[in-house]
Amino acid sequence: MMKEGEHLVVSAPGKVILHGEHAVVHGKRALACSLNLRTYLHVTPSTDGMVRMNLPDINIYREWKVEDLTRLFANKTQSEEVSLPPVYPPVDRFNSLCEIIGLDFMVSSNLPTSAGLGSSAAFAVALVSSLLKLSNQISDPGTQSFNPWTGDHLEVINGWAFIAEKIIHGNPSGVDNSVSTYGGIVKYQNKALERLSCKHELSVIITNTKVPRSTKHMVSNVADKLKQYPTVINPVLDAVEAISQRCQDELTSTESLDDSVIRDMMSANHALLCVLGVNHPAIEKVCRMTHDHGLTSKLTGAGGGGCVITFLPAETPEEKTQDIISQLTNQGYECWKTLVGGPGVGLHFGEPNTDFIIPTALQSRAKLCHIL
Amino acid sequence: MMKEGEHLVVSAPGKVILHGEHAVVHGKRALACSLNLRTYLHVTPSTDGMVRMNLPDINIYREWKVEDLTRLFANKTQSEEVSLPPVYPPVDRFNSLCEIIGLDFMVSSNLPTSAGLGSSAAFAVALVSSLLKLSNQISDPGTQSFNPWTGDHLEVINGWAFIAEKIIHGNPSGVDNSVSTYGGIVKYQNKALERLSCKHELSVIITNTKVPRSTKHMVSNVADKLKQYPTVINPVLDAVEAISQRCQDELTSTESLDDSVIRDMMSANHALLCVLGVNHPAIEKVCRMTHDHGLTSKLTGAGGGGCVITFLPAETPEEKTQDIISQLTNQGYECWKTLVGGPGVGLHFGEPNTDFIIPTALQSRAKLCHIL
Repeated sequence: MMKEGEHLVVSAPGKVILHGEHAVVHGKRALACSLNLRTYLHVTPSTDGMVRMNLPDINIYREWKVEDLTRLFANKTQSEEVSLPPVYPPVDRFNSLCEIIGLDFMVSSNLPTSAGLGSSAAFAVALVSSLLKLSNQISDPGTQSFNPWTGDHLEVINGWAFIAEKIIHGNPSGVDNSVSTYGGIVKYQNKALERLSCKHELSVIITNTKVPRSTKHMVSNVADKLKQYPTVINPVLDAVEAISQRCQDELTSTESLDDSVIRDMMSANHALLCVLGVNHPAIEKVCRMTHDHGLTSKLTGAGGGGCVITFLPAETPEEKTQDIISQLTNQGYECWKTLVGGPGVGLHFGEPNTDFIIPTALQSRAKLCHIL
Repeated sequence: MMKEGEHLVVSAPGKVILHGEHAVVHGKRALACSLNLRTYLHVTPSTDGMVRMNLPDINIYREWKVEDLTRLFANKTQSEEVSLPPVYPPVDRFNSLCEIIGLDFMVSSNLPTSAGLGSSAAFAVALVSSLLKLSNQISDPGTQSFNPWTGDHLEVINGWAFIAEKIIHGNPSGVDNSVSTYGGIVKYQNKALERLSCKHELSVIITNTKVPRSTKHMVSNVADKLKQYPTVINPVLDAVEAISQRCQDELTSTESLDDSVIRDMMSANHALLCVLGVNHPAIEKVCRMTHDHGLTSKLTGAGGGGCVITFLPAETPEEKTQDIISQLTNQGYECWKTLVGGPGVGLHFGEPNTDFIIPTALQSRAKLCHIL
């Protein structure tokens, strides 16, 4: 329960497919990694009996009377539609949250929507975590400037976030919410998820070409190609699988990271994705522009538009990174320098960690509340 | 023997690797095809006891006294260094050629040198054919405007041309002289050559990026990559092999050609060559520029520079082709519209066939001689 003057800030990361997109549709593994572009959720109690959800980044604002929500929860219709596994806390316990005084939710994110970076899962994970925390289903993970939840708490968060994803997407794989919850790397193969222990974070630039993409269309094109040229495409998928395996070995090894392997695998996989026909001129432009600076990029996700990931080896000077970002931005693309393989959902206290980029909308509100 | 007032014009094509470059080093097939950029050789008798070799395109001119050459041939030292198979005519019979009156050789070619397009083999094949014809080792193949030699004559020409290639290159594969002699497609795998019956000529643009390339360097880079990432590179080579096989099936089939297969295989192989790391920004630029016109290109040969082949499907309007060529030329590249899989070495009579582009240097001399 939240009292007047209290507040809560949680954040959950996005996800990026490092390797294995498209190959995963044909039985190979995909490596989905957390992306430290995060969705922040700031909760304060309201005293006027209202629950408010404010997402200023995407101009969404909704409000409900607490009494209306209480009635809705009493019917439980929506919640019953998705079958809850027995380990999850009963829905009833959530009702108590809003019965008291009402809550103001403010959401701000570094993640673009509809770009394949798991923005909906990050929202779900952040929201679920805050509700679980406020209803004391999970405890405080710590009092550092950023405190990721651990152990069983993550399983509870992930279970509920998966339900939220089901409500939003119908039949999600569960990859996005798992990555956002646990952070690090999730291996996905033949519909089975495996959480991998990620020993290295990768510094990257994510570039959103803003070219609209259709995952369904791209997946169907690749399936057509496989059907038409099986002797060509099957070994291509085998090569992608070998790349994913090699990268998995590299990132889960306690040995120091070999940047050249990360780079080689990224550039090889990008070319193989071109064989699959999921490239786009805008993607090629980003790859070329970063290549001109000696950096390696690959498309990430379904392709045909969407995002490009550019690896920044340890020795890359910050000035060079900023130079590339400004060149890409001048071309109308949206860029973020961030980390891959970092922490999952967590609670913020006091001054923000410099690894985190607090979104502008949240910054102003945070100032108002004397937090962050 | 050549009498005053007589002349002889032969031409031999260049070669282009359609598929399988680099993969061929690792046991897969390469498809080497004739390229209708030809080396023309014009022979006239000289009356002053001199043998002259004039290659105005590359500013080479040599002349020898007939008596000096006769002495050289009498020693046979050079000829004996390469062991001749028993089917080849004895060297003695060649001596008679120049003993008479001397000869003027004028060579002009549409082929750039050192671009991996088999210019040295085309020169050897044209020279050998003219000598064999003048010494009556092979007969007239016909009296059309262009008359390719056939049957056993081709074997004799190819055998001698291979010896010439050995003198020039040391340890050649024999692919270039075979393609230039026979035309069509030669399959090369595990050091074995197989002449394939090519049922379709492909209309293409060949673009020389003029970026100097080192075949040795590129081949060694690929070998390193294979050693470092065998699980990735081996399936890539398998995919290239499947592409070569598919293209071979397509080009040797009597069914009508499916342009989309040629295009798909070309674009897939180019991307796979990028995985092997043999790309170059200039190659990418040519691919992109042609792609912007809806055409498909791939690098051909060792990569890291050198030439790009762009497929022109049957319906491509000539205006569009010329537009692309002029754009590429404006970038400083050298372009030719030509045919792949066309005829091998042959004898010219009278007016030139419009499929042939007579080099400028030869045109002026031909006019002088009232031929072509």
